[in-house]
Amino acid sequence: MKARYFDDLKVGDRFKSEPLRVTEKKLIGFARKFDPQMFHLSHKEAQRTIFKGLTASGWHTAALTMRLFVQTLNCANGAIGLGVDKLRWPNAVRPGDVLTVETKILAMRVSRSRPRYGIIRLRNVTTNQRGEVVQRMLASAMVQRRKTKRAKK
Amino acid sequence: MKARYFDDLKVGDRFKSEPLRVTEKKLIGFARKFDPQMFHLSHKEAQRTIFKGLTASGWHTAALTMRLFVQTLNCANGAIGLGVDKLRWPNAVRPGDVLTVETKILAMRVSRSRPRYGIIRLRNVTTNQRGEVVQRMLASAMVQRRKTKRAKK
Repeated sequence: MKARYFDDLKVGDRFKSEPLRVTEKKLIGFARKFDPQMFHLSHKEAQRTIFKGLTASGWHTAALTMRLFVQTLNCANGAIGLGVDKLRWPNAVRPGDVLTVETKILAMRVSRSRPRYGIIRLRNVTTNQRGEVVQRMLASAMVQRRKTKRAKK
Repeated sequence: MKARYFDDLKVGDRFKSEPLRVTEKKLIGFARKFDPQMFHLSHKEAQRTIFKGLTASGWHTAALTMRLFVQTLNCANGAIGLGVDKLRWPNAVRPGDVLTVETKILAMRVSRSRPRYGIIRLRNVTTNQRGEVVQRMLASAMVQRRKTKRAKK
């Protein structure tokens, strides 16, 4: 797939990622490193919590969403995250769930401080195999503009 | 350290985590799994980007912040993340940086739907060894209340 520049995007564009399965091993592995709480670490202990079973860390869901987003948009020389708002986890991610990310471009403008770049505002919604939303967020990212052959006068 | 319940916290409380070093190996390892972009993966390629060198994924900083937060507050039976707002990465995290998280409790209330829990609103600020802010965010989390011996009439 060809890499995308800022110029290749427009407001209203939608993208859908490939699916990605969250294995129990990876779910527990992430939690051990970054979110060592009982409902992310052990089947048995997680049964006693309000989740009634093992769930992924929200930060694991966020990291997997980033991977799917990066692969799907494939921005030339990368997309530089500036910030995230209204990050929510309305449903838990369970072992074996298959996640997909849908991206919508909400707004676009050229960067004032770095005119070689554009800034995109986007919404990422992550769903599981039953179509339930497991994460939603708004984000801003800096994406490179295509080099023009002639400099503007 | 004793586990903290909702009742052990009050608005205005501040907590400071232990320091945590971000090694180059872990920085690249996280990026390979979750944020495979050139400025997070390779010294050589990262030199050509606006970062002029290798930087950590913002999601790696967020995940490390969660780890430090969980260890520092040590909430009884865990802190359940409900959502995050105004997540920003004002300075890049570089290999070898040492991160510390400062948490401030901004607001507290008892959960309406789950009266055994309280909901805390907090600010987490992550700084490097030079005191530069590498991440800031607002978050809401659900924390268990201490069991009272007598049920209320």
